Amino acid sequence: MAGVTRIPFGSPQAPPPPSKIVAVGRNYREHAKELGNTAPDEEPLLFLKAPSTLVWGSGGEIVLPPESARVDFEGELALVIGRRVKSWPEADWLDALAGVCCANDVTARDLQKKDGQWARAKSFDTFCPIGPEIVSGLDPSDLAIATRVDGTTKQSSRTSEMVFSPRFLIGYISRMMTLLPGDLILTGTPAGIAPLSPGETVEVEIEGIGVLTSRVRAPQGS
Amino acid sequence: MAGVTRIPFGSPQAPPPPSKIVAVGRNYREHAKELGNTAPDEEPLLFLKAPSTLVWGSGGEIVLPPESARVDFEGELALVIGRRVKSWPEADWLDALAGVCCANDVTARDLQKKDGQWARAKSFDTFCPIGPEIVSGLDPSDLAIATRVDGTTKQSSRTSEMVFSPRFLIGYISRMMTLLPGDLILTGTPAGIAPLSPGETVEVEIEGIGVLTSRVRAPQGS
Repeated sequence: MAGVTRIPFGSPQAPPPPSKIVAVGRNYREHAKELGNTAPDEEPLLFLKAPSTLVWGSGGEIVLPPESARVDFEGELALVIGRRVKSWPEADWLDALAGVCCANDVTARDLQKKDGQWARAKSFDTFCPIGPEIVSGLDPSDLAIATRVDGTTKQSSRTSEMVFSPRFLIGYISRMMTLLPGDLILTGTPAGIAPLSPGETVEVEIEGIGVLTSRVRAPQGS
Repeated sequence: MAGVTRIPFGSPQAPPPPSKIVAVGRNYREHAKELGNTAPDEEPLLFLKAPSTLVWGSGGEIVLPPESARVDFEGELALVIGRRVKSWPEADWLDALAGVCCANDVTARDLQKKDGQWARAKSFDTFCPIGPEIVSGLDPSDLAIATRVDGTTKQSSRTSEMVFSPRFLIGYISRMMTLLPGDLILTGTPAGIAPLSPGETVEVEIEGIGVLTSRVRAPQGS
Protein backbone atom coordinates (compact mmCIF):
# COMPACT_ATOMS: atom_id res chain seq x y z
CA MET A 1 0.00 0.00 0.00
CA ALA A 2 1.01 3.58 -0.52
CA GLY A 3 1.59 5.72 2.57
CA VAL A 4 -1.05 6.76 5.04
CA THR A 5 -3.19 9.66 3.83
CA ARG A 6 -6.06 11.56 5.43
CA ILE A 7 -9.28 12.17 3.51
CA PRO A 8 -11.72 14.74 4.97
CA PHE A 9 -15.40 13.83 4.66
CA GLY A 10 -17.02 15.53 1.67
CA SER A 11 -13.71 16.18 -0.08
CA PRO A 12 -13.34 15.11 -3.73
CA GLN A 13 -11.28 12.07 -2.67
CA ALA A 14 -13.90 10.90 -0.16
CA PRO A 15 -16.42 8.20 -1.09
CA PRO A 16 -20.13 9.13 -1.16
CA PRO A 17 -22.30 8.86 1.96
CA PRO A 18 -23.06 5.25 2.88
CA SER A 19 -26.02 3.37 1.41
CA LYS A 20 -25.89 1.27 4.58
CA ILE A 21 -24.15 0.89 7.93
CA VAL A 22 -23.53 -2.75 8.84
CA ALA A 23 -22.52 -3.24 12.47
CA VAL A 24 -21.21 -6.23 14.41
CA GLY A 25 -22.52 -7.07 17.87
CA ARG A 26 -20.52 -8.77 20.64
CA ASN A 27 -17.27 -8.75 18.69
CA TYR A 28 -15.01 -8.33 21.75
CA ARG A 29 -15.37 -11.13 24.32
CA GLU A 30 -15.08 -8.91 27.41
CA HIS A 31 -17.85 -6.63 26.14
CA ALA A 32 -20.17 -9.56 25.42
CA LYS A 33 -19.58 -10.72 29.01
CA GLU A 34 -20.29 -7.35 30.62
CA LEU A 35 -23.82 -7.43 29.17
CA GLY A 36 -24.36 -11.02 30.25
CA ASN A 37 -23.87 -12.53 26.80
CA THR A 38 -21.31 -14.81 25.23
CA ALA A 39 -19.51 -13.76 22.08
CA PRO A 40 -20.65 -15.69 18.99
CA ASP A 41 -18.01 -18.18 17.90
CA GLU A 42 -19.28 -19.48 14.56
CA GLU A 43 -20.54 -16.35 12.85
CA PRO A 44 -20.65 -12.62 13.54
CA LEU A 45 -23.89 -11.12 14.84
CA LEU A 46 -24.86 -8.43 12.35
CA PHE A 47 -27.23 -5.51 12.68
CA LEU A 48 -27.93 -2.35 10.71
CA LYS A 49 -27.94 1.32 11.69
CA ALA A 50 -29.85 3.89 9.63
CA PRO A 51 -27.52 6.34 7.81
CA SER A 52 -29.66 9.17 9.22
CA THR A 53 -27.78 8.53 12.49
CA LEU A 54 -24.53 9.92 11.06
CA VAL A 55 -22.72 12.93 12.48
CA TRP A 56 -19.75 13.64 10.20
CA GLY A 57 -16.41 14.55 11.71
CA SER A 58 -15.27 15.46 15.19
CA GLY A 59 -16.95 18.14 17.29
CA GLY A 60 -20.61 17.28 16.70
CA GLU A 61 -23.44 16.55 19.09
CA ILE A 62 -25.13 13.41 20.35
CA VAL A 63 -28.74 14.25 21.23
CA LEU A 64 -30.29 12.08 23.96
CA PRO A 65 -33.83 11.17 22.84
CA PRO A 66 -36.76 11.50 25.26
CA GLU A 67 -37.79 7.89 24.45
CA SER A 68 -34.77 6.46 26.31
CA ALA A 69 -33.62 6.62 29.93
CA ARG A 70 -30.18 5.15 29.19
CA VAL A 71 -28.02 6.00 26.19
CA ASP A 72 -24.55 4.42 26.07
CA PHE A 73 -21.41 5.22 24.10
CA GLU A 74 -19.71 2.40 22.19
CA GLY A 75 -16.32 3.32 20.73
CA GLU A 76 -15.56 1.37 17.55
CA LEU A 77 -13.31 1.05 14.54
CA ALA A 78 -15.23 1.78 11.32
CA LEU A 79 -14.22 0.39 7.94
CA VAL A 80 -15.10 2.66 5.01
CA ILE A 81 -15.72 0.73 1.79
CA GLY A 82 -14.03 2.15 -1.30
CA ARG A 83 -15.49 0.15 -4.19
CA ARG A 84 -18.24 -2.25 -5.18
CA VAL A 85 -17.54 -5.37 -3.11
CA LYS A 86 -19.37 -8.69 -3.60
CA SER A 87 -18.11 -12.06 -2.28
CA TRP A 88 -14.74 -10.40 -1.75
CA PRO A 89 -11.63 -12.61 -1.31
CA GLU A 90 -10.23 -12.25 2.22
CA ALA A 91 -6.67 -11.95 0.97
CA ASP A 92 -7.57 -8.73 -0.86
CA TRP A 93 -9.47 -7.20 2.05
CA LEU A 94 -7.37 -4.03 2.29
CA ASP A 95 -8.17 -3.25 -1.36
CA ALA A 96 -11.88 -3.11 -0.49
CA LEU A 97 -11.30 -0.13 1.81
CA ALA A 98 -11.31 3.58 1.14
CA GLY A 99 -9.94 3.78 4.67
CA VAL A 100 -10.86 3.59 8.32
CA CYS A 101 -12.10 5.98 10.99
CA CYS A 102 -13.40 6.13 14.56
CA ALA A 103 -17.10 5.64 15.21
CA ASN A 104 -19.39 5.85 18.20
CA ASP A 105 -22.17 3.26 17.96
CA VAL A 106 -24.47 5.15 20.33
CA THR A 107 -27.15 2.84 21.76
CA ALA A 108 -30.36 3.32 23.76
CA ARG A 109 -29.62 0.40 26.07
CA ASP A 110 -33.08 0.22 27.63
CA LEU A 111 -34.83 0.12 24.26
CA GLN A 112 -32.34 -2.43 22.96
CA LYS A 113 -33.41 -4.78 25.74
CA LYS A 114 -37.10 -3.94 25.50
CA ASP A 115 -37.45 -4.28 21.72
CA GLY A 116 -35.42 -7.44 21.14
CA GLN A 117 -34.60 -6.14 17.67
CA TRP A 118 -31.87 -3.51 17.96
CA ALA A 119 -32.90 -1.34 15.00
CA ARG A 120 -34.64 1.39 16.97
CA ALA A 121 -32.17 1.50 19.87
CA LYS A 122 -29.31 1.99 17.42
CA SER A 123 -30.93 4.37 14.93
CA PHE A 124 -31.99 7.61 16.60
CA ASP A 125 -30.71 10.70 14.82
CA THR A 126 -27.12 11.58 15.91
CA PHE A 127 -26.42 8.00 17.13
CA CYS A 128 -23.43 7.49 14.82
CA PRO A 129 -20.69 10.10 15.01
CA ILE A 130 -17.76 9.15 12.74
CA GLY A 131 -14.40 10.80 12.27
CA PRO A 132 -12.23 12.74 12.60
CA GLU A 133 -11.61 11.90 8.91
CA ILE A 134 -11.02 8.83 6.73
CA VAL A 135 -7.49 7.47 7.09
CA SER A 136 -6.35 5.59 4.01
CA GLY A 137 -3.42 3.15 3.75
CA LEU A 138 -3.50 2.06 7.40
CA ASP A 139 -3.84 -1.63 8.32
CA PRO A 140 -6.41 -1.55 11.17
CA SER A 141 -5.81 -5.12 12.40
CA ASP A 142 -3.92 -4.24 15.58
CA LEU A 143 -4.48 -0.69 16.78
CA ALA A 144 -5.04 0.68 20.28
CA ILE A 145 -8.65 1.85 20.76
CA ALA A 146 -9.92 3.89 23.72
CA THR A 147 -13.03 5.80 24.74
CA ARG A 148 -12.98 8.64 27.27
CA VAL A 149 -15.82 10.54 28.91
CA ASP A 150 -14.84 13.98 30.23
CA GLY A 151 -11.21 12.84 30.12
CA THR A 152 -11.71 9.57 32.06
CA THR A 153 -10.82 6.41 30.14
CA LYS A 154 -13.80 4.05 29.96
CA GLN A 155 -12.81 1.64 27.20
CA SER A 156 -9.27 0.56 26.34
CA SER A 157 -8.41 -2.35 24.10
CA ARG A 158 -6.82 -3.28 20.80
CA THR A 159 -8.54 -4.04 17.51
CA SER A 160 -6.65 -7.36 17.48
CA GLU A 161 -8.97 -8.45 20.31
CA MET A 162 -11.94 -8.69 17.95
CA VAL A 163 -13.56 -12.12 17.68
CA PHE A 164 -14.03 -11.61 13.93
CA SER A 165 -11.32 -9.53 12.23
CA PRO A 166 -11.86 -6.77 9.65
CA ARG A 167 -10.35 -9.13 7.09
CA PHE A 168 -12.94 -11.81 7.87
CA LEU A 169 -15.86 -9.39 8.15
CA ILE A 170 -15.43 -7.94 4.65
CA GLY A 171 -15.47 -11.42 3.11
CA TYR A 172 -18.36 -12.60 5.27
CA ILE A 173 -20.67 -9.62 4.88
CA SER A 174 -20.00 -9.21 1.16
CA ARG A 175 -21.12 -12.77 0.47
CA MET A 176 -24.62 -11.72 1.57
CA MET A 177 -24.88 -8.05 0.72
CA THR A 178 -23.15 -6.12 -2.01
CA LEU A 179 -21.09 -3.37 -0.35
CA LEU A 180 -20.90 -0.04 -2.15
CA PRO A 181 -18.43 2.87 -1.97
CA GLY A 182 -18.99 4.77 1.26
CA ASP A 183 -20.71 1.90 3.07
CA LEU A 184 -19.57 1.54 6.67
CA ILE A 185 -18.80 -1.56 8.72
CA LEU A 186 -18.75 -0.91 12.46
CA THR A 187 -16.61 -3.64 13.96
CA GLY A 188 -17.93 -3.85 17.52
CA THR A 189 -17.07 -2.28 20.85
CA PRO A 190 -14.68 -3.34 23.64
CA ALA A 191 -15.69 -3.71 27.30
CA GLY A 192 -16.43 -0.61 29.37
CA ILE A 193 -19.66 0.78 27.92
CA ALA A 194 -21.58 3.16 30.16
CA PRO A 195 -24.39 5.71 29.97
CA LEU A 196 -23.97 9.30 28.79
CA SER A 197 -25.37 12.42 30.44
CA PRO A 198 -26.10 15.86 29.00
CA GLY A 199 -23.06 18.12 29.00
CA GLU A 200 -20.52 15.31 28.84
CA THR A 201 -17.85 15.08 26.16
CA VAL A 202 -17.09 11.63 24.77
CA GLU A 203 -13.94 10.87 22.80
CA VAL A 204 -13.15 7.78 20.74
CA GLU A 205 -9.44 7.52 19.91
CA ILE A 206 -7.78 4.96 17.67
CA GLU A 207 -4.02 4.72 17.20
CA GLY A 208 -2.94 6.24 13.89
CA ILE A 209 -6.42 7.59 13.17
CA GLY A 210 -7.05 10.29 15.75
CA VAL A 211 -9.78 11.44 18.11
CA LEU A 212 -13.52 11.66 17.46
CA THR A 213 -15.06 14.08 19.96
CA SER A 214 -18.80 14.47 20.57
CA ARG A 215 -20.71 16.61 23.01
CA VAL A 216 -23.81 15.11 24.62
CA ARG A 217 -26.94 17.16 24.99
CA ALA A 218 -30.52 16.78 26.13
CA PRO A 219 -33.27 16.94 23.51
CA GLN A 220 -34.55 20.28 22.26
CA GLY A 221 -37.18 21.71 24.56
CA SER A 222 -36.26 19.59 27.58
CA MET B 1 -55.21 15.32 -3.01
CA ALA B 2 -54.93 15.48 -6.78
CA GLY B 3 -55.81 12.37 -8.74
CA VAL B 4 -53.92 9.12 -8.72
CA THR B 5 -50.76 9.16 -10.85
CA ARG B 6 -48.14 6.53 -11.60
CA ILE B 7 -44.44 7.33 -11.29
CA PRO B 8 -41.98 4.85 -12.83
CA PHE B 9 -38.81 4.26 -10.80
CA GLY B 10 -35.92 6.31 -12.11
CA SER B 11 -38.15 8.81 -13.90
CA PRO B 12 -37.62 12.56 -13.28
CA GLN B 13 -40.69 12.63 -10.97
CA ALA B 14 -39.45 9.72 -8.86
CA PRO B 15 -37.63 10.33 -5.57
CA PRO B 16 -33.99 9.19 -5.27
CA PRO B 17 -33.11 5.66 -4.11
CA PRO B 18 -33.74 5.19 -0.38
CA SER B 19 -31.15 6.04 2.24
CA LYS B 20 -32.87 3.44 4.42
CA ILE B 21 -35.62 0.83 4.44
CA VAL B 22 -37.51 0.76 7.75
CA ALA B 23 -39.71 -2.30 8.15
CA VAL B 24 -42.36 -3.27 10.69
CA GLY B 25 -42.52 -6.78 12.15
CA ARG B 26 -45.71 -8.54 13.31
CA ASN B 27 -48.01 -5.77 12.10
CA TYR B 28 -50.92 -8.09 11.19
CA ARG B 29 -52.21 -10.16 14.14
CA GLU B 30 -52.84 -13.36 12.17
CA HIS B 31 -49.28 -13.32 10.81
CA ALA B 32 -47.79 -12.81 14.28
CA LYS B 33 -49.80 -15.85 15.44
CA GLU B 34 -48.71 -18.13 12.61
CA LEU B 35 -45.06 -17.74 13.70
CA GLY B 36 -45.96 -18.32 17.36
CA ASN B 37 -45.71 -14.65 18.38
CA THR B 38 -48.17 -12.08 19.59
CA ALA B 39 -48.49 -8.77 17.80
CA PRO B 40 -47.01 -5.86 19.76
CA ASP B 41 -49.74 -3.66 21.19
CA GLU B 42 -47.90 -0.65 22.59
CA GLU B 43 -45.34 0.11 19.93
CA PRO B 44 -44.40 -1.21 16.48
CA LEU B 45 -41.47 -3.61 16.21
CA LEU B 46 -39.02 -1.99 13.78
CA PHE B 47 -36.16 -3.45 11.81
CA LEU B 48 -34.01 -2.31 8.90
CA LYS B 49 -33.28 -3.85 5.53
CA ALA B 50 -30.16 -2.89 3.56
CA PRO B 51 -30.98 -0.91 0.38
CA SER B 52 -28.70 -3.33 -1.51
CA THR B 53 -31.64 -5.78 -1.28
CA LEU B 54 -33.72 -3.74 -3.74
CA VAL B 55 -34.96 -5.06 -7.06
CA TRP B 56 -36.71 -2.20 -8.85
CA GLY B 57 -39.97 -2.82 -10.68
CA SER B 58 -41.86 -5.94 -11.66
CA GLY B 59 -40.25 -8.86 -13.51
CA GLY B 60 -37.01 -9.18 -11.56
CA GLU B 61 -35.41 -12.13 -9.80
CA ILE B 62 -35.18 -13.26 -6.19
CA VAL B 63 -31.97 -15.26 -5.77
CA LEU B 64 -32.05 -17.91 -3.02
CA PRO B 65 -28.75 -17.71 -1.11
CA PRO B 66 -26.78 -20.88 -0.30
CA GLU B 67 -26.61 -19.79 3.38
CA SER B 68 -30.34 -20.46 3.90
CA ALA B 69 -32.49 -23.58 3.63
CA ARG B 70 -35.78 -21.67 3.86
CA VAL B 71 -36.53 -18.37 2.16
CA ASP B 72 -40.08 -17.01 2.52
CA PHE B 73 -42.06 -14.40 0.62
CA GLU B 74 -43.77 -11.63 2.61
CA GLY B 75 -46.11 -9.46 0.55
CA GLU B 76 -46.33 -5.91 1.92
CA LEU B 77 -47.49 -2.36 1.29
CA ALA B 78 -44.51 0.00 0.99
CA LEU B 79 -44.73 3.72 1.75
CA VAL B 80 -42.36 5.87 -0.32
CA ILE B 81 -41.32 9.06 1.46
CA GLY B 82 -41.44 12.21 -0.64
CA ARG B 83 -39.78 14.86 1.51
CA ARG B 84 -37.63 15.42 4.60
CA VAL B 85 -39.81 14.18 7.46
CA LYS B 86 -38.93 14.68 11.13
CA SER B 87 -41.46 14.35 14.00
CA TRP B 88 -44.20 14.52 11.40
CA PRO B 89 -47.77 15.35 12.53
CA GLU B 90 -50.06 12.36 12.00
CA ALA B 91 -52.80 14.51 10.49
CA ASP B 92 -50.49 15.44 7.60
CA TRP B 93 -49.27 11.90 6.98
CA LEU B 94 -50.36 11.73 3.33
CA ASP B 95 -48.25 14.83 2.59
CA ALA B 96 -45.14 12.91 3.69
CA LEU B 97 -45.56 10.42 0.87
CA ALA B 98 -44.28 10.42 -2.70
CA GLY B 99 -46.61 7.46 -3.07
CA VAL B 100 -46.99 3.77 -2.33
CA CYS B 101 -46.05 0.50 -4.01
CA CYS B 102 -45.97 -3.25 -3.48
CA ALA B 103 -42.97 -4.85 -1.79
CA ASN B 104 -41.80 -8.35 -1.04
CA ASP B 105 -39.94 -8.48 2.28
CA VAL B 106 -38.09 -11.69 1.40
CA THR B 107 -36.80 -13.41 4.54
CA ALA B 108 -34.38 -16.28 5.27
CA ARG B 109 -36.64 -17.77 7.95
CA ASP B 110 -34.04 -20.20 9.33
CA LEU B 111 -31.42 -17.48 9.75
CA GLN B 112 -33.98 -15.12 11.27
CA LYS B 113 -34.57 -17.66 14.05
CA LYS B 114 -30.91 -18.61 14.42
CA ASP B 115 -29.48 -15.08 14.57
CA GLY B 116 -32.03 -13.44 16.86
CA GLN B 117 -31.28 -10.15 15.12
CA TRP B 118 -33.09 -10.09 11.77
CA ALA B 119 -30.60 -7.95 9.85
CA ARG B 120 -28.88 -10.76 7.97
CA ALA B 121 -32.02 -12.82 7.29
CA LYS B 122 -33.70 -9.78 5.73
CA SER B 123 -30.75 -8.28 3.82
CA PHE B 124 -29.42 -10.69 1.23
CA ASP B 125 -29.12 -9.16 -2.24
CA THR B 126 -32.48 -9.34 -4.15
CA PHE B 127 -34.50 -9.69 -0.91
CA CYS B 128 -36.60 -6.56 -1.54
CA PRO B 129 -38.42 -6.42 -4.87
CA ILE B 130 -40.60 -3.29 -5.05
CA GLY B 131 -43.03 -2.13 -7.73
CA PRO B 132 -44.53 -2.17 -10.22
CA GLU B 133 -44.15 1.61 -9.90
CA ILE B 134 -44.86 4.36 -7.37
CA VAL B 135 -48.55 5.24 -7.15
CA SER B 136 -49.11 8.79 -5.97
CA GLY B 137 -52.36 10.26 -4.61
CA LEU B 138 -53.78 6.97 -3.32
CA ASP B 139 -54.81 6.62 0.34
CA PRO B 140 -53.38 3.20 1.29
CA SER B 141 -55.32 2.80 4.56
CA ASP B 142 -57.81 0.20 3.36
CA LEU B 143 -56.69 -1.69 0.26
CA ALA B 144 -56.90 -5.39 -0.60
CA ILE B 145 -53.47 -7.06 -0.52
CA ALA B 146 -52.69 -10.55 -1.82
CA THR B 147 -49.67 -12.71 -2.57
CA ARG B 148 -49.72 -15.56 -5.08
CA VAL B 149 -47.15 -18.24 -5.86
CA ASP B 150 -47.50 -19.78 -9.33
CA GLY B 151 -51.04 -18.46 -9.41
CA THR B 152 -52.16 -19.89 -6.04
CA THR B 153 -53.23 -17.30 -3.46
CA LYS B 154 -51.14 -17.57 -0.29
CA GLN B 155 -51.83 -14.28 1.47
CA SER B 156 -55.06 -12.30 1.30
CA SER B 157 -55.94 -9.44 3.62
CA ARG B 158 -56.59 -5.71 3.74
CA THR B 159 -54.18 -2.97 4.79
CA SER B 160 -56.83 -1.85 7.31
CA GLU B 161 -55.95 -5.01 9.27
CA MET B 162 -52.56 -3.56 10.29
CA VAL B 163 -52.00 -3.20 14.03
CA PHE B 164 -50.22 0.14 13.43
CA SER B 165 -51.54 2.15 10.49
CA PRO B 166 -49.43 3.96 7.87
CA ARG B 167 -50.64 7.20 9.42
CA PHE B 168 -49.31 6.19 12.84
CA LEU B 169 -46.08 4.69 11.51
CA ILE B 170 -44.95 7.87 9.76
CA GLY B 171 -45.39 9.90 12.93
CA TYR B 172 -43.81 7.25 15.15
CA ILE B 173 -40.76 6.45 13.03
CA SER B 174 -40.04 10.09 12.18
CA ARG B 175 -39.81 11.02 15.85
CA MET B 176 -36.71 8.81 16.05
CA MET B 177 -35.18 8.93 12.61
CA THR B 178 -35.32 11.68 10.03
CA LEU B 179 -36.93 10.24 6.91
CA LEU B 180 -35.59 11.42 3.57
CA PRO B 181 -37.04 11.47 0.04
CA GLY B 182 -37.04 7.95 -1.35
CA ASP B 183 -36.89 6.23 2.04
CA LEU B 184 -39.17 3.21 2.28
CA ILE B 185 -41.41 2.01 5.09
CA LEU B 186 -42.46 -1.62 4.73
CA THR B 187 -45.65 -1.97 6.72
CA GLY B 188 -45.64 -5.67 7.60
CA THR B 189 -47.05 -8.84 6.08
CA PRO B 190 -50.42 -10.62 6.52
CA ALA B 191 -50.76 -14.30 7.45
CA GLY B 192 -49.89 -16.99 4.93
CA ILE B 193 -46.12 -16.73 4.53
CA ALA B 194 -44.42 -19.82 3.06
CA PRO B 195 -41.11 -20.87 1.52
CA LEU B 196 -40.09 -20.22 -2.07
CA SER B 197 -38.47 -22.70 -4.46
CA PRO B 198 -36.38 -22.11 -7.58
CA GLY B 199 -38.49 -21.63 -10.70
CA GLU B 200 -41.52 -20.30 -8.87
CA THR B 201 -43.15 -16.98 -9.69
CA VAL B 202 -44.35 -14.87 -6.77
CA GLU B 203 -46.78 -11.98 -7.20
CA VAL B 204 -47.72 -9.29 -4.69
CA GLU B 205 -50.88 -7.43 -5.67
CA ILE B 206 -52.38 -4.42 -3.95
CA GLU B 207 -55.70 -2.88 -4.96
CA GLY B 208 -55.19 0.30 -6.98
CA ILE B 209 -51.42 -0.22 -7.20
CA GLY B 210 -50.92 -3.29 -9.37
CA VAL B 211 -48.89 -6.48 -9.40
CA LEU B 212 -45.24 -6.96 -8.46
CA THR B 213 -43.96 -10.15 -10.08
CA SER B 214 -40.66 -11.85 -9.20
CA ARG B 215 -39.13 -15.07 -10.45
CA VAL B 216 -37.26 -17.20 -7.92
CA ARG B 217 -33.96 -18.79 -8.83
CA ALA B 218 -31.20 -20.82 -7.25
CA PRO B 219 -27.85 -19.13 -6.69
CA GLN B 220 -25.35 -18.88 -9.54
CA GLY B 221 -23.33 -22.06 -9.91
CA SER B 222 -25.70 -24.28 -7.92
